[in-house]
Amino acid sequence: MWRLYQYPLCPFSRKVRLALAEKGVEVELVPELPWARRDEFVDLNPAGQTPVLVGDRGAALIDSTAICEYFEETIERMPLLGASAADRAEVRRLCVWFDQKFYAEVGHILLAERMFKRIVQRAAPDGGALRTAGRNLEHHLGYIEYLLDHRRWLSGTTFGLADIAAAAHLSVIDYLSALDWHGHATAKQWYSAIKSRPTFRALLSERMDGLAPPAHYDKLDF
Amino acid sequence: MWRLYQYPLCPFSRKVRLALAEKGVEVELVPELPWARRDEFVDLNPAGQTPVLVGDRGAALIDSTAICEYFEETIERMPLLGASAADRAEVRRLCVWFDQKFYAEVGHILLAERMFKRIVQRAAPDGGALRTAGRNLEHHLGYIEYLLDHRRWLSGTTFGLADIAAAAHLSVIDYLSALDWHGHATAKQWYSAIKSRPTFRALLSERMDGLAPPAHYDKLDF
Repeated sequence: MWRLYQYPLCPFSRKVRLALAEKGVEVELVPELPWARRDEFVDLNPAGQTPVLVGDRGAALIDSTAICEYFEETIERMPLLGASAADRAEVRRLCVWFDQKFYAEVGHILLAERMFKRIVQRAAPDGGALRTAGRNLEHHLGYIEYLLDHRRWLSGTTFGLADIAAAAHLSVIDYLSALDWHGHATAKQWYSAIKSRPTFRALLSERMDGLAPPAHYDKLDF
Repeated sequence: MWRLYQYPLCPFSRKVRLALAEKGVEVELVPELPWARRDEFVDLNPAGQTPVLVGDRGAALIDSTAICEYFEETIERMPLLGASAADRAEVRRLCVWFDQKFYAEVGHILLAERMFKRIVQRAAPDGGALRTAGRNLEHHLGYIEYLLDHRRWLSGTTFGLADIAAAAHLSVIDYLSALDWHGHATAKQWYSAIKSRPTFRALLSERMDGLAPPAHYDKLDF
């Protein structure tokens, strides 16, 4: 069985876990806190980041995008990237949007302020940084609404990796009590549909040591 | 013909240009300075970044990775991602390494200090930032040497997108007079082999307005 090195609040590990679950690939979870810079883990991935997926023969797949593309190529069940080359270009554009732009402007700031400072540095979050992330989040929720005004799912007519990437990142900031759907009813409805998928429910039952989510976090009625 | 919105020192546009040239796809270059935030360009790509590739029917391909994957899927000539799914995972891991890690730790800093401050802000570069980028660059050149100790090209036995991505990013910092091969003879030899490819030579003849490269920049003997 594949072993996935990850920690519960890593958005990129969540993306991989959701994609693999949709494709029916079972993985054994190996807890790994990348900031501990464990020697054996850095040997496995010189970039020092989660997720890393290791197969039975010891070969490692590194980086959430490379992992998702690998299983899209090797497992036919539940295509997540789209039917045509143009469809796949749009899915990949949106994955980059959430993995890089959303993460830099929202997710990374909130993980630093509300997770890392709390459980590692034992420091108070910076109010200015939290406000910046909050303002950026409003723009991103607005962009999700804009996409959903024209489409059933983020990249078009079918559920796919763009929805998984977006939901993975949003679920992390929801755990960090930073997600307010007020004024974004269409986006909330889309997230509600993802939240009710069996693949997502397993993930929402997990907890990060030393950090509890808000009461609504794993509720379908939020 | 495809139109590519780009500017001469954008490493991601260079990566796309090299990949398309290797595949024999002709493009018309459209100059675009993303920091100008031109309305029509932001309408085309809400992320506001180069490169964007627009087809004859007006459809836009956005993001260097999505563009390269699109042409890998649609044009058989000169495969750049590798033969097996595992090969492609390694190529994709290394592209992420250079597009995200190298860019954040080296390229982005040097573009901000040596290009943006000079031609846009008319300010002097920050010495501390340049030293940080220089130290990070040494680590990256060391990693390239490490890979080439075991492999003919960065991802394995064949030239591909990992080499293109790395060379694109390195060529930008070379233009900015920030690349010193001293102590990295193996990496220099690899770069020399790429520099002599016809696809690369076209790119090296271009200049960024208001910013001249060092004398060795487009020489094969550097």
